[in-house]
Amino acid sequence: MKNPWKDSPRALLRAEGEHFDLSAVDPASTPGWRSSCDADDYLADTARRLADLQEMLFANGRTENGAHRSLLLVLQAMDTAGKGGIVRHVIGNVDPQGTHIHGFKKPTPVELKHDFLWRIRKELPATGLIGVFDRSHYEDVLVHRVRHLSPAEVVEQRYGIINDFEAELTEQGTTVVKVMLHISKDEQRRRLESRLDRPDKHWKYSPNDVDERELWPAYQEAYQIAIQRTSTAVAPWHVVPADSKPYARAAVQRILIETLEDLALTWPKADFDVETERERLAAS
Amino acid sequence: MKNPWKDSPRALLRAEGEHFDLSAVDPASTPGWRSSCDADDYLADTARRLADLQEMLFANGRTENGAHRSLLLVLQAMDTAGKGGIVRHVIGNVDPQGTHIHGFKKPTPVELKHDFLWRIRKELPATGLIGVFDRSHYEDVLVHRVRHLSPAEVVEQRYGIINDFEAELTEQGTTVVKVMLHISKDEQRRRLESRLDRPDKHWKYSPNDVDERELWPAYQEAYQIAIQRTSTAVAPWHVVPADSKPYARAAVQRILIETLEDLALTWPKADFDVETERERLAAS
Repeated sequence: MKNPWKDSPRALLRAEGEHFDLSAVDPASTPGWRSSCDADDYLADTARRLADLQEMLFANGRTENGAHRSLLLVLQAMDTAGKGGIVRHVIGNVDPQGTHIHGFKKPTPVELKHDFLWRIRKELPATGLIGVFDRSHYEDVLVHRVRHLSPAEVVEQRYGIINDFEAELTEQGTTVVKVMLHISKDEQRRRLESRLDRPDKHWKYSPNDVDERELWPAYQEAYQIAIQRTSTAVAPWHVVPADSKPYARAAVQRILIETLEDLALTWPKADFDVETERERLAAS
Repeated sequence: MKNPWKDSPRALLRAEGEHFDLSAVDPASTPGWRSSCDADDYLADTARRLADLQEMLFANGRTENGAHRSLLLVLQAMDTAGKGGIVRHVIGNVDPQGTHIHGFKKPTPVELKHDFLWRIRKELPATGLIGVFDRSHYEDVLVHRVRHLSPAEVVEQRYGIINDFEAELTEQGTTVVKVMLHISKDEQRRRLESRLDRPDKHWKYSPNDVDERELWPAYQEAYQIAIQRTSTAVAPWHVVPADSKPYARAAVQRILIETLEDLALTWPKADFDVETERERLAAS
């Protein structure tokens, strides 16, 4: 297969901290992608590669003498942007035993009695696993900023707390991959309309989705600020244009593959003598 | 596609409680399967059906007016029998967001301070989910019986406790599907040998696997007794011949599809007015 990527989306889509400008990212663009290629083919053709890399990560986590690493994929986006599709079509390509997927909803009363990272820490991936957060601690600086759920100075303080938290994770062997799926307001309307058109998709629709659309500019501003403040060297953001679902999925799959390749893992060495075991087994 | 099943494996493989005889089940057999058909093709061809049924279960769990049901697949087997392959190749066919997979290892010191179902209850599937237990509360009557980890009278008492527990789950909307993957001792040796042959599979091998083989007859007896005592009308066991991995996977996929079909779910009705929402959305 010809490489459908002219350039790595991991480099192209990386948000450069304080100079980042969300309004300059066209949600309908497909950076790095050769337009003659089919993104679904790419997803299928590289599914095995992603699964093999995940298995090696898992194997290392399972053995005493393995490298103890994990990966955390943080997905943030406006509704309908395709977080669920990433989980299904990209994460769905690896062994489900090697993943830990958690969707963060409105916090429970118990969760609200703790600091905002308390519930987050409980869902971190164990060694060897790929963790996926469908929404995350970023809600505490996104919807909290937009809907004034916390005082401004508390939200302000959280950017730094998040950077400390993610640096701590990284130092302890968790590679943090942050992805914002970026769709346009018009594309969101089309996707919501199609949910209304299909009775088998009504369960995915909520009248609140329209209320949230009224706050579109405020959310874009909150994303802009959050990304500027938390796209760090150790845990950068990738802003993935997502009006094309196939492109967004292909980009995230490629970002994950490159990230796992960078870990440069090898199969853990046997901590037993292979020939001795062959003999024991033959005799059993 | 021609139906490759002459008869439903769900009926054929169901263990009939006190009259069940494990030694009468040939691990190399493929009950109900038309030998001219390819089990991998069957898995691929019905993956979509399984995924659609799972999505409907999930949708119902997500809505106020939905049916609140869940499914729990309990997988038990001797090592190498293919539990992991079931998770990867059958459960891997559905949206990973709709599953909760948990592998039960040796209990932790904290877990040992509680009754044997304490850690089990914590991993039960939420409404709308398919839960998968890779090993389960049955370890407490299998390895505990074989290795005398609990007194005989405690193990004895647990069969009844398990039946009560599973009846309780069923009454509360969780359909319990119990599967024992049944392999032969020779097939296990071949699979362990192939792990020794491949350095990329050494991490899956443990010298303890050979020690366990010495106890093969005791484990078979423990399975026999456990199945006799806990294959109830509400939570029957299915003993799936597993020397053929493709057969075992096809059988479990078919059992899950039939079980989900029996729930006779429908898409949850909208709790909003569709036309009103169309207008609000168009104006937004």
